[in-house]
Amino acid sequence: MGKLARDVALVAVGMCKFGNYSKYGPPDQIKTSRDLWMEAYLDMLKHMDKTMDVQKEAEALFLGNFSSDLFEQQGHLAPLMAEVIGLNPKPAMRLEDACVSGGVAFRTAVIAVASGIYDTVIAGGVEKMTDLTTAGVTDTLAAAADGAFEYPYGATFPGLYANIATAHMAKYGTTLRQLRLVAIKNHNNGKLNPRAQMQMTLEDIMNKNIQKGVGNWKDIWEYLDDDKVNPWVAYPLRLNDCSLVTDGAAMAIITTKEKAKQYTDTPLYIVGTGQGSDTLALHDRPDRTHLRAAQVAAKEAFKMAKLEPKNIQTAEVHDCFTIAEIVAMEDVGFFKFGEGGKAVEEGLTELNSQIPINTSGGLKSKGHPIGASGIGQIVEVFKQMRGEAEGKRQLKNIPEIGLTHNVGGSGGSCTIHIFKR
Amino acid sequence: MGKLARDVALVAVGMCKFGNYSKYGPPDQIKTSRDLWMEAYLDMLKHMDKTMDVQKEAEALFLGNFSSDLFEQQGHLAPLMAEVIGLNPKPAMRLEDACVSGGVAFRTAVIAVASGIYDTVIAGGVEKMTDLTTAGVTDTLAAAADGAFEYPYGATFPGLYANIATAHMAKYGTTLRQLRLVAIKNHNNGKLNPRAQMQMTLEDIMNKNIQKGVGNWKDIWEYLDDDKVNPWVAYPLRLNDCSLVTDGAAMAIITTKEKAKQYTDTPLYIVGTGQGSDTLALHDRPDRTHLRAAQVAAKEAFKMAKLEPKNIQTAEVHDCFTIAEIVAMEDVGFFKFGEGGKAVEEGLTELNSQIPINTSGGLKSKGHPIGASGIGQIVEVFKQMRGEAEGKRQLKNIPEIGLTHNVGGSGGSCTIHIFKR
Repeated sequence: MGKLARDVALVAVGMCKFGNYSKYGPPDQIKTSRDLWMEAYLDMLKHMDKTMDVQKEAEALFLGNFSSDLFEQQGHLAPLMAEVIGLNPKPAMRLEDACVSGGVAFRTAVIAVASGIYDTVIAGGVEKMTDLTTAGVTDTLAAAADGAFEYPYGATFPGLYANIATAHMAKYGTTLRQLRLVAIKNHNNGKLNPRAQMQMTLEDIMNKNIQKGVGNWKDIWEYLDDDKVNPWVAYPLRLNDCSLVTDGAAMAIITTKEKAKQYTDTPLYIVGTGQGSDTLALHDRPDRTHLRAAQVAAKEAFKMAKLEPKNIQTAEVHDCFTIAEIVAMEDVGFFKFGEGGKAVEEGLTELNSQIPINTSGGLKSKGHPIGASGIGQIVEVFKQMRGEAEGKRQLKNIPEIGLTHNVGGSGGSCTIHIFKR
Repeated sequence: MGKLARDVALVAVGMCKFGNYSKYGPPDQIKTSRDLWMEAYLDMLKHMDKTMDVQKEAEALFLGNFSSDLFEQQGHLAPLMAEVIGLNPKPAMRLEDACVSGGVAFRTAVIAVASGIYDTVIAGGVEKMTDLTTAGVTDTLAAAADGAFEYPYGATFPGLYANIATAHMAKYGTTLRQLRLVAIKNHNNGKLNPRAQMQMTLEDIMNKNIQKGVGNWKDIWEYLDDDKVNPWVAYPLRLNDCSLVTDGAAMAIITTKEKAKQYTDTPLYIVGTGQGSDTLALHDRPDRTHLRAAQVAAKEAFKMAKLEPKNIQTAEVHDCFTIAEIVAMEDVGFFKFGEGGKAVEEGLTELNSQIPINTSGGLKSKGHPIGASGIGQIVEVFKQMRGEAEGKRQLKNIPEIGLTHNVGGSGGSCTIHIFKR
């Protein structure tokens, strides 16, 4: 166990522009899952460096999606998304593990190629969230928590992550300022990403509010402390500590090492994959400051890759809330337990620093279309590692080794992937 | 492509008694997904012929479930089911392809073991359906149809399969009598299955109605033609042409050929696996009399197994409606196109006949807990092929080669598995 029977490569990625395409919005801006998925497909075709007949070459579709059932009253999504891009009658299946549905779809696709049953497959993710009200979205997301012991008592995700945050603050002295800095950094990065939902820094947002006459703040810190523009959602998390409600789709093509060069001159190799699980309910875990599922996933992935955290040169981690990024950095092993917050404060995770994290803008600024988020992370690492990230977002030293960390729920599941050029 | 890197074996199975455990029923008979799943687990442990520390040996869980989201407002089900049987922090993921969620979970588990990443895994399925009203169930199931072009226009599954049935009748002369005979046969088998939801023949049901004074019929045919007790659901399908609304769970342990003998003296080998997809919407397919997804899956599975339909000695096929069993028999290749109905009429698919089909009672009588149905089929084939089916249900010639055929929606997806002793 623990080894793949053959090497697997990543040769192409695509994503739509993440955003809000609600059916209640302007008629010319409405998009369905089908539209988002087709857009991701066309984006992938557009950015291929060699011609590839995807409909001929791709042998199966692994689709990450959290709950088109609740969001759109549409189950059985995988053959439908296969239909949209002309893949029927090839096998198509949906993978679901809440917010790590995309990560699990990717891992399952990697494993399938390694098994010998397929040579070339598509791993993708899609989620259309904005057709529900905000309360409806919160309620739907809460289905990823324990339906017997959390949800009926009013626990929704901001509250659960607030619980993780206060535990982390109590044990390690992590500060509110450190949490806010995660959001500031990720919005700085997201501004540089043309596919991000919010291409604005938090200062941009503050200045916009000043122009509109909403208020007048001396700096971003005063702005972020203002209950009116940045209200508490669940202490210590304010509005700007939460990721976005997003419609989006992303996809990737995975193939064998042998075939990879047919499709691109610069494939990435998936040298490590790891997955772990945990109790759904937060209160059932002995330690709330870290996620066991992530630690197990990291251990498996690093062991398979024969690498250590210090070898990683860029990472996309699951920042569904600002505290989640700090916990993630510690779970993966970039920083010791309790030192994540300080690392953010010292700027060690910014662009072109020690370990650039969430160069895409992360879930906080790029957006968090649940089932697509894990694949969205892989899109970013692929671009960074091939020197193809747009404009100033591209890291100056093109990374040779990258990592993605994708979490489901409050840590009930997690996948980690390690990529090498 | 098309070959598994190593051989994979099936060494243990378990299932709960399928039934109606609604929260609106008698308090002492209420069961949740967690209860059903635990019951399946305990059933599996009870029927193992060697001692196995499942919590230690099993390395991952592949869970089939259609929509605990809509049925129970519970997503992220896989780590929760892993928790119930003590598997955390091992990887746990949910697979969904409507009614073939169980079959897809099984196939994905087989592929994962072949890949080398795991040696031993659990593939299972669970669905808790009866907490919704009948209309709620119909509505939820309809989410497996096309949400843009079928569901909003009132198409639900009885109507879609009725459409398949009329097309089959028009093209091949399949008769109402042949449809009814499928139900009669499957209830005859289900009566012999202690885990079936309805352990009654249709004659038993008729006699019960006579005793209750509901009516008086000279034979089963008059009974089945009575609009009062067997109303039309969608012509040509009456109530007794439809499978049941069921709560249930089932699971299986899959391992390498090398390890199999550690766990049992009589493993089965999974010699063929196939999967196909198709458009979700029925009207998008050139031919409504057969399912392309099933034909593609059969072709892949038989090719991998180096076998032909005539080699199969028992099969569980997806009889969500009586017409579906006839179509399935033809898609798999047991009978030529258009000859399935006649085969049923001639008794060729009964117990101890040419090709015994749905010895378990099928979805019609054993029950159809959506995500668990595909694994439930595998439970039956495993028992039959080891001579462990209860009482008179056991085939006299213990089959050496068996097959399962599991369909999603109106044929948007399908898996087929072939087992050998």
